[in-house]
Amino acid sequence: MSTEPSRFRSLCKTESHTTHTSGYCPGFAQANLLVLPKTASDDFVDLCKRNPVACPLIGVTDPGDPFQIDDKRVIFDPGFDVRTDFPKYTVYEDGKLIATKTNIKDEWTDEHVAFLIGCSFSFESALQEAGLSPAHFKESKNVSMYLTTKMMDASGIFVRCPYVVSMRPYKPEMLQRVREITREFRKTHGEPIDWGYDALDRLGIKDINKPDFGDACEIADNEIPVFWACGVTPQIAAVQASSSIKGKVMAHLPGHMLVLDIKDADVKHL
Amino acid sequence: MSTEPSRFRSLCKTESHTTHTSGYCPGFAQANLLVLPKTASDDFVDLCKRNPVACPLIGVTDPGDPFQIDDKRVIFDPGFDVRTDFPKYTVYEDGKLIATKTNIKDEWTDEHVAFLIGCSFSFESALQEAGLSPAHFKESKNVSMYLTTKMMDASGIFVRCPYVVSMRPYKPEMLQRVREITREFRKTHGEPIDWGYDALDRLGIKDINKPDFGDACEIADNEIPVFWACGVTPQIAAVQASSSIKGKVMAHLPGHMLVLDIKDADVKHL
Repeated sequence: MSTEPSRFRSLCKTESHTTHTSGYCPGFAQANLLVLPKTASDDFVDLCKRNPVACPLIGVTDPGDPFQIDDKRVIFDPGFDVRTDFPKYTVYEDGKLIATKTNIKDEWTDEHVAFLIGCSFSFESALQEAGLSPAHFKESKNVSMYLTTKMMDASGIFVRCPYVVSMRPYKPEMLQRVREITREFRKTHGEPIDWGYDALDRLGIKDINKPDFGDACEIADNEIPVFWACGVTPQIAAVQASSSIKGKVMAHLPGHMLVLDIKDADVKHL
Repeated sequence: MSTEPSRFRSLCKTESHTTHTSGYCPGFAQANLLVLPKTASDDFVDLCKRNPVACPLIGVTDPGDPFQIDDKRVIFDPGFDVRTDFPKYTVYEDGKLIATKTNIKDEWTDEHVAFLIGCSFSFESALQEAGLSPAHFKESKNVSMYLTTKMMDASGIFVRCPYVVSMRPYKPEMLQRVREITREFRKTHGEPIDWGYDALDRLGIKDINKPDFGDACEIADNEIPVFWACGVTPQIAAVQASSSIKGKVMAHLPGHMLVLDIKDADVKHL
């Protein structure tokens, strides 16, 4: 589990690691992915600026160049390739999922731009260090994620795009501490956006036991669900905007992130 | 109507102008106000960072100093006083509105910090110049504003704080142009967050004919309601957080803004 990021990415590159990344390379930040045709990229940058909790943008490539992220603090590895270094990718065309793949070399073109978005996994090691390990983390499961009825603020082609949230159960008396620890991680969704069983109604979540992505997670009687914004949101946004996007869209498979070269402690200062 | 900002603020200072400011000093940006005890100010700054569309922060005072805004591009007038230069203020204590006043000199203390927040009025002259004058603007009414069920992302003491939206009716065929014009005004709420009659359900607005603030506005049969984030949002947030705020909270009376020294064309670049 405590592999170096570049070594871990090599395992992804060679398809030796093809499962989720929660708990891998503890202490290092992780990122969500969205790859868009460059005609959609200005609107997407605006979407991130208007909705920084749901879409905390931490790095971007030049069009057609999969090897470099603009912010060298995030990825400095000269062997990096955004098309191979995630364990699993999703490929969309006309808003439909057409493939789940271990690399996107065949799909990537000179017209594509890759966006890295902060991931809530990144603060999990901080919670663990404080004795507040997320439940799914202990069971080596994927975090529970839900599609909500909370919409991002519209930006260009991105209209009526819902928040996806991740959920971790905590005892109510731990809530303030959990909020404080995660608040500092501004570029990886920060503190929870809502919590408690009454949040289900506000977020439009019908059944807490049936997450839309990831694994179900038991909530003990003395616990409440706590919800953070989640980096699956951008790919749902790309699906929602698909009628305005010409060309393929790629993303990471939910839970299957990119492990970055930057530490969690430093990602706070991006 | 085409008074210089400093002259217009003098009229407010001397209580010669005590009504709304929509359409006054065209071309100059306007701002919403929230005055908080300094113990609440870090959490409020975080709230603005996490919710920049609802709470676009454009200037702040030092604690106890009502005469200077940190960003001199916004207010450079040496005669400025945040306690007197709005036409009307609201005063809250323990979350209850206790007074509506033309100045807050008696309420302001050494512990207070004033926040200026961008205002959707600022893009109305741009809409007017494009031949898309908002309906209320033509009738010299106050814009219609609604409390919604859309919550800002929680930040510190600011939990479950709803968006307030302003509404302007437009013909559907004008929507893209209206979005494009207002999109550039990133620091004054930018483009609409939602539109159409189906947005009422998403925003939890029960009766479009009964705004919670401002004046009602007729929507023609060939028009749809278009909703922007609104600077009344922060004062509702302060009311919502009142149990965690010790001391008086002040704000502008909805629609009764501060006219700034910066032009709309320049507020885009803040």
